[in-house]
This record gives sequence, structure tokens and C-alpha cells, in this order.
Amino acid sequence: MTQKIAAFLAERRPQTPCLVVDLDLVAENFRRFRDALPDARVFYAVKANPAPQILSLLAEQGSCFDTASVAEIEMALAAGAGPERISYGNTIKKESDIARAFALGVRLFAFDSQAELEKLARSAPGAQVFCRVLTSGEGAEWPLSRKFGCVPEMAEALMLQAAELGLDPYGLSFHVGSQQRDPAQWDAALATTAGVFRRLAAQGLQLRMVNLGGGFPTRYLKEVPSAQDYGNAILRALRDHFGNRLPDTIIEPGRGMVGNAGMIQTEVVLISRKSQEDPRRWVYLDIGRFGGLAETEGEAIRYPIHSARDDAAVEEAIVAGPTCDSADVLYERNAYPLPVSLEIGDKLLIAATGAYTTTYASVAFNGFEPLAAYYV
Amino acid sequence: MTQKIAAFLAERRPQTPCLVVDLDLVAENFRRFRDALPDARVFYAVKANPAPQILSLLAEQGSCFDTASVAEIEMALAAGAGPERISYGNTIKKESDIARAFALGVRLFAFDSQAELEKLARSAPGAQVFCRVLTSGEGAEWPLSRKFGCVPEMAEALMLQAAELGLDPYGLSFHVGSQQRDPAQWDAALATTAGVFRRLAAQGLQLRMVNLGGGFPTRYLKEVPSAQDYGNAILRALRDHFGNRLPDTIIEPGRGMVGNAGMIQTEVVLISRKSQEDPRRWVYLDIGRFGGLAETEGEAIRYPIHSARDDAAVEEAIVAGPTCDSADVLYERNAYPLPVSLEIGDKLLIAATGAYTTTYASVAFNGFEPLAAYYV
Repeated sequence: MTQKIAAFLAERRPQTPCLVVDLDLVAENFRRFRDALPDARVFYAVKANPAPQILSLLAEQGSCFDTASVAEIEMALAAGAGPERISYGNTIKKESDIARAFALGVRLFAFDSQAELEKLARSAPGAQVFCRVLTSGEGAEWPLSRKFGCVPEMAEALMLQAAELGLDPYGLSFHVGSQQRDPAQWDAALATTAGVFRRLAAQGLQLRMVNLGGGFPTRYLKEVPSAQDYGNAILRALRDHFGNRLPDTIIEPGRGMVGNAGMIQTEVVLISRKSQEDPRRWVYLDIGRFGGLAETEGEAIRYPIHSARDDAAVEEAIVAGPTCDSADVLYERNAYPLPVSLEIGDKLLIAATGAYTTTYASVAFNGFEPLAAYYV
Repeated sequence: MTQKIAAFLAERRPQTPCLVVDLDLVAENFRRFRDALPDARVFYAVKANPAPQILSLLAEQGSCFDTASVAEIEMALAAGAGPERISYGNTIKKESDIARAFALGVRLFAFDSQAELEKLARSAPGAQVFCRVLTSGEGAEWPLSRKFGCVPEMAEALMLQAAELGLDPYGLSFHVGSQQRDPAQWDAALATTAGVFRRLAAQGLQLRMVNLGGGFPTRYLKEVPSAQDYGNAILRALRDHFGNRLPDTIIEPGRGMVGNAGMIQTEVVLISRKSQEDPRRWVYLDIGRFGGLAETEGEAIRYPIHSARDDAAVEEAIVAGPTCDSADVLYERNAYPLPVSLEIGDKLLIAATGAYTTTYASVAFNGFEPLAAYYV
């Protein structure tokens, strides 16, 4: 926990559950990405945490913004980023939203299908477009499904068509999978994209940009490589596959930019056992899967959990949320070591929760308020 | 689709996605439950859909309310129900919330552990309490985990302790599992509760109430038994296990009360294939798992999906939501037959979506608004 977060919690004593984000860590993460890949433009994935305080800070630092909707474009503009620093990176857009983004000045759009390309040609004429290519995504804690992207052969055909339709066929994007702990995964994806570049160049079409996507991890329970490790691996792969004609590059960190900057404070509501002989306690918190911890689905993301009794003896516990929903269990297969002396009313800190928490929170499930958040 | 919903959509042409609920169907469902179990008190599970229009209607019909939080208690009170018609049914409550509910006049509380019982004794002195007992829950489409309830032996000990602590040891509750399609499942649970009744009577403590829980299904793709079928099976099981000394009974329908009364209208945002040879289309809608269809997690609930082209030839499609989240896929293992002629911009109707949709919607994931809802 940072001093700023500790001081805020001690002085303000906010109601739980709440998220507190240390903006200094966000600024530090931005600098690390910029230093690790000095030639790449950083597009912060707004969906990870769209708080105005984060967007303004990053806009001041010179960050660009990867957006998923017109609402996110408007947030980035409101934070002071010009439209030339905004990418409409969702491959699934209503044509009316494309037109609205274009009217707002956005000129960089993602797509992965013929129908989307035709929408862009009609409603964002002349814009720069990049096609998302399917890659394997091994090694990610949340491997992406095939929801986004198309096979390289289709990307080639679509980029040729983009030129015919009067769009600017700018480049390709891929995504190696969320919370990707293996920097080498960018290598295979860059080999694939370089192949598309070569085959299109042979047909007279010179692509200029590779969007390296997101996937940069946050440290949860396991150690992760540094931004510099990722930068080194990516630069090596770029040189291996593109030689001396390096393309423009974009990275889209979201989790890697804000994940470790936030900490959720929660209260223990109940501790119980299901029978006198039950070997495991159930520990119920005032936050759960529907209050912001949606990424515990399938126990995929295992957040570090701390208490003031961290030095005490520990014992495994099943950790669950406060709603009347039986699916609102955070960790059961992977029971958590928590202090034996833990008591109802104790405060716990859930670390590395700056990304993908506030906006995932449900409007009012079971009547509980969405997650409160403070930016210090 | 009911005439009222059809007329509303035709006249008002609301922006998609939106939910439209026909209140007449809610009233009809309430009557069916009341007629099927005329001696049971109906406690509507507010969490299923807490819209003021639904709560007011049910309050007028004489319904009672099962609530999960102080906010839900306040909603039920605002709808015109007196506190004597409200149960605080969540077994996981902050003691400050128990005190607040007690101050609001609520006198009926659930619990399933010693610690919760002690909170109730301190902060809701003299209140009626019921202990939730673990049952197996076979046959439910969403079998409940062990999150709620304790073993019968522990329930016995806790009910004796409740009396010692000055609380009114009113009865027991159980839950046979959500979307329970087998009316016979209540039989085993009633055998268990009757056993606890008998053993406690032998120790001089006469329990008086059995809370039969929820679990009453809504028709999605498969036919489900009628409220009357459930009523008959439950009455038979009550007589088998309790003989002539029938306890007071409570039912807590949520999904069964409002599920079939609502219909979501959505728009097709994109139709694509991942390669020229891809045998299956991807159909992307403007609503997904984070916009209200959370119960498609694991493809558990399979909603009927209709279009104006329902008479046309169909072909399987993967159905996904509009966010940049790879987990936002509704049906992939169970691909959906959708019209071959389906086009981008077509409206689809997702049926039986009156329960567990609006409040599950995330605050603003990817910048998308929560689900709009209309009650007609």
C-alpha cells in the first residue's frame, strides 16, 4: 500500500467497500511504458478505468486513448486529449456511432470484418483503419476467445478492399491475451503480421502500423515481468520480423497502466462454518462479484488480500460476496489463507484493483450501491 | 410477446437495448402463486426486479417482500408495504444494517450461522428468525452452492440458542436451486425440515414456519411445470412430512414472478465470419453479459431470441455482446439458430428477461449505459 492510500484511508475513513487509486503510480506506469518502448505511441485502454482524474493525468503526460464507445471518446476529449490522440478500437460499432466519432474528429478506427469496413467507408470516409488479426494468445491468464479478429488471409483481402473504398489502410492489430505473463508471445503475433505486411507489399500496398494491443499484466499473487522486459522482447521481435523497415507501433495498456495503482478496502460481514465439523471457514465480505470484482469469475484473477493481522497464523477460507446470489463467491476452489484471528468487522485490503473494477460494478444488484472510488 | 409490449415498441420506438415489462403478466403470476398455494404467504424476491412499478403492483395485490439489503427494504416500504410484510432474507448482514431494518419496523430475519444469530439478538431483539438449512438442490439449472445454509444439526442447535437469546425461533428455510424444473425437489427438503421440527419439539421447542424459498422457474427454451404443479407437489410433501400439523409457509418467487413478463429489444450491430471458410457466423448485439444478460454466464440461462424473420430459414450463429471484452459472449457452445437472412440493424427480441437483468447491468462498462427499462 502506498503512503498516499494509507493516509487517505486513515484520515478520511471512507465507508466500505471503496476503491482508492494512487495517481502517482499511474504516472509512473505511463513513464515505464514510454521508456520501455520509446518509439511506440501509448494508447491507454480507457475501459480499464475511465475516471476523469486518470484520463486528465494521462492526457497531460501525452498519452493517447483507446476507446470502446462514443461515451469513452467523449470522456477522453473532456480530459483534454484532441481527437488525433483517440482510437476507436472496438471492432463492433453501430454505424451511427462511427458517424458520431467521425464528427468528433476521430480518424483512427479498428475493424475485423467486411461489414464493419463498409460501415467505416460510408461513415468515416478517408479515415485510417487497422484490421485486427486473430492470434493464439497462449500464456495469458485470460486467453481471449475468437470474438475479435479474423484470420490473416482475410485481413489481407480486407486491407486491399479498404484502399479501394477510399479508406487509409494503415495497419494491423492483435492482442496476445489479457494478463499475458510471457513477453515472448508478441513474437509469434509479430511474425504473423509481418507476413501480411510482406504479402500486401508484393501487391503494391504498403501498411505502416502495427498495434501491439494490450495484455500487459498487473502483479497479483504471482510476480510478472517488468515493462522493460516486455519492451525488450517486443523490440527484438520487431527487428526479427520487420528488419530495418520498422512500422509505426501502438500499445494499448489498460490493466498494466492502472491495475497496481488501486486498492479496495472492504469489511468482513460474516465468518461462519456450515457444520460443527466444517474444516473451512466461509468469510463474507461487503464486496463481491457484482460489486466490482467481476474478474474473479472462474477465479481467474486472484487478488492479494491483506489485513492488519497479516503476521498472525493463517488458515484457509472460502471468500464470498454479500449478495443473495450463490454465484457471488470469489474464491472457493482456490481457498485463501486468511488470519485465524480474523473477526467480523475487520477491514481487509484487496490489492491491485485499479483496473476493471469500478465500471464492472452492477447498478444496484441486491440494492447495493456501485463501488465508490477515490483518486488521490 | 404481449399486445401491450408490442404496442409500446411500435408506438414509442425506444432506443435499444431496452427491457419492456408487461405488468399484467406480473399480476397474473402473483394470482397463480396465490391460487396454487392458498395457505402460503407470498414474499416476492425483490432482487429479481426492484422496479417501483412492480413493487407497487405487488404491494396492492397483498404480496409480502423478501429483501436482501436495507435499500431493498426501503424500496418495499416506499411501494406501500408495511414492515410486517417484509422479510430481511439475506443471511449475510452488517449489524448496522440489521439495526436499521429493525428501526424501520422489520421483525422477520434470516440467518444460517451463530455469528449472525448473535448480531440479531443484539440488534433486532425479540425478532422472528428463521434458519436456512442446506439441501441438495438437484435438478436446478443453477444449483446453488453451499454459500447459504448450514447442516440440519447446526440449525437445531442454533434455533435452541435463538430462544435462549430472546429471539422468536420461528422456523426454517431452504432453497431447492434457481430455475428448479422438478417440483418433487421440495419433497426431500421438506423431509429434512420436518426432521428438525420433530427433534426440536422433543426438546420442547415448537417451530411454526417453513420458508419454501424460491426456485420457481420461468419458461426459457424448455417447457416448465405450472405454478399449480408446484403447489400440488409441495402440498403433498407438506402433508407427507408434517401430517395434520402443517406449519405456516412462505414462498419467495422472484424469477417465477417477473421473468416471463419482460422482453428485451436489441439491435444487431455486426454479423461477421472469422475467415472465408468459417462455418459459423458471429452475431454481435447491442446488449451482452455486462449490459444485463449476466445470467448467460456459462450459457446457464438460454433465452428465446426472436426476430421479424422467424419464418425464414435458420443457420447457427455465435451470439456475442458489444463490449471489448472477450468474455462478453452469450452463446458459443450452444450456438443459436438465427435467420440466414438476418441483417445488421435488425431488431431482435430476447424473451423472458423480466428477472435478473436490469440490476445486474454494469454501471458503465466500456462506456455503455445501463439497461433502460419500461413498465407498461
